[in-house]
Amino acid sequence: MNEFQLIEKFFKQPKKNAILGIGDDAAIIPKNEKDYLLLSVDTLSIDSHFTKQSDPYYLGWKALAVNISDIVAMGGVPTFALLSLTVEEINKKWLSKFSQGIKACAKKYNVELIGGDTNRGSMSVSVTIIGDSPRKNVLTRSAAKINDDIWISDEIGYAHLGFALSKHGPTMSNCLKKRALQAFLKPEPPMNFILDNKKYMHAAIDISDGLVSELEHITVEQKLGAKIDVDSIPMHKWFKEHNNQELALTGGEDYQILFTANKKNRNKINNSLKKNKLKGGVIGTITNSKKVEFEHKGKLVNYKKGGFKHFG
Amino acid sequence: MNEFQLIEKFFKQPKKNAILGIGDDAAIIPKNEKDYLLLSVDTLSIDSHFTKQSDPYYLGWKALAVNISDIVAMGGVPTFALLSLTVEEINKKWLSKFSQGIKACAKKYNVELIGGDTNRGSMSVSVTIIGDSPRKNVLTRSAAKINDDIWISDEIGYAHLGFALSKHGPTMSNCLKKRALQAFLKPEPPMNFILDNKKYMHAAIDISDGLVSELEHITVEQKLGAKIDVDSIPMHKWFKEHNNQELALTGGEDYQILFTANKKNRNKINNSLKKNKLKGGVIGTITNSKKVEFEHKGKLVNYKKGGFKHFG
Repeated sequence: MNEFQLIEKFFKQPKKNAILGIGDDAAIIPKNEKDYLLLSVDTLSIDSHFTKQSDPYYLGWKALAVNISDIVAMGGVPTFALLSLTVEEINKKWLSKFSQGIKACAKKYNVELIGGDTNRGSMSVSVTIIGDSPRKNVLTRSAAKINDDIWISDEIGYAHLGFALSKHGPTMSNCLKKRALQAFLKPEPPMNFILDNKKYMHAAIDISDGLVSELEHITVEQKLGAKIDVDSIPMHKWFKEHNNQELALTGGEDYQILFTANKKNRNKINNSLKKNKLKGGVIGTITNSKKVEFEHKGKLVNYKKGGFKHFG
Repeated sequence: MNEFQLIEKFFKQPKKNAILGIGDDAAIIPKNEKDYLLLSVDTLSIDSHFTKQSDPYYLGWKALAVNISDIVAMGGVPTFALLSLTVEEINKKWLSKFSQGIKACAKKYNVELIGGDTNRGSMSVSVTIIGDSPRKNVLTRSAAKINDDIWISDEIGYAHLGFALSKHGPTMSNCLKKRALQAFLKPEPPMNFILDNKKYMHAAIDISDGLVSELEHITVEQKLGAKIDVDSIPMHKWFKEHNNQELALTGGEDYQILFTANKKNRNKINNSLKKNKLKGGVIGTITNSKKVEFEHKGKLVNYKKGGFKHFG
């Protein structure tokens, strides 16, 4: 049972005033006649998402960034955040660095920290994010259309390599090492690209749980399918050289956006990717097959769905 | 250093778009021309707020109720909630009871659960609450006026007795035992009373951290003072019989509301208390002394500020 199903089973109730409840990157509630409010919460727990040795600056950055990603995936603009911090003891140096990290991320994305709560206990960082989106143009995971192009906003797999490196992982060039650690420690959701192009997008979702899992959410769960050309998925040559594309496809924590769009918008989106210095591209097509098919070197291959599950 | 000061020191930044940021029961942001949105988060952590033996139904209730209390204290109506749950393992029976508790509280206060996040780790329950309030009538802790009556919405001290009982505390009648455990396990913030009377109220705050602490927040921190008549504070006769009023005044977790109002509204508020079956009343007066003075049996007494601090 994965995180999504666990929440859904016990807590899902019929919607009353919410526009969209449990089950997407963020919930949607009415704000005013023109706008929706988007809301999401994510908790990072010690030993699951970070360790005692983790750099508090990057932990602060990431705790906010993973929540910003949820708002970006819905086509929203993040506005405010609340922090609930649980620590075993007051360590001023740690708190200072942690607060610098979260404030730096807040500054980059123009998010205002407006409240919080501090507790004593096993360390965890829970951030609630609030965002705005015009009612007419909110992105959900359930809006893909047959024959849509399937896009990814940037190269994938770096965060998983970064995670592996943080545990004394495989050898690689210093340049790749730097890029991988950056992706793992200091994710930067591609907000400006999404805001510029959301008018072309149908479905969208962030790939925090790995590309293969998230593809299921936008296709099979909506009674659609996908045909993916693995060789066209943007990733560092390391994965091809090590014949390990699967790692990039199933590893989690890439805070990039998977989205679909009508083929007629391909040039406009490609131009915007270049302008935003993103190496994303088209990786496949939405089908009516109710399954996700991966073609690699001309053959159909299978990847274990799963990605980054908290409960296996 | 207490919870409030810890948050403030490291995370407080100048307000930009928020109406009220870190430092009150809830943050305030603009919603539309008429209304504000109120937002708050509280986390309950294992071994700090509950134990492995805690009944999951009551934990679910309380995790939401303590957040509803923050909205009620601002004169708002709670509307939506997000849950972030961290558990060591999937225990379906536990999850089922927990979800029943949180849903029961949600139903009583007409709150909609709209999202969440589940993680593996040391157990904690973090709830984010959203509420609405008309712009012209939001209650804050900083609006007391000299010569205001100081009110408490109901008898205090039960929750602390309930906490003591949960640890094999003092002997008491079965009737008191039931009431104390109810207050500790299943707090019910007095929402209807506050909504009916907020037009008369100046400052308001919930007394989750104990009456003595919260009195400081609405007076000394605002450069005001208070004169409190301890003998008029509503509490069960047990406290007087055991000459231990201090326990009721400093014990935390009473989710009642401390508020101030012009003396001319005394009758209206008293009538509404009766109508709502609350045993609250006037306990003192706002002064310009910049200190909180407690008078007990005609003498000034001191109580340790402190109440329910997570960091001593």
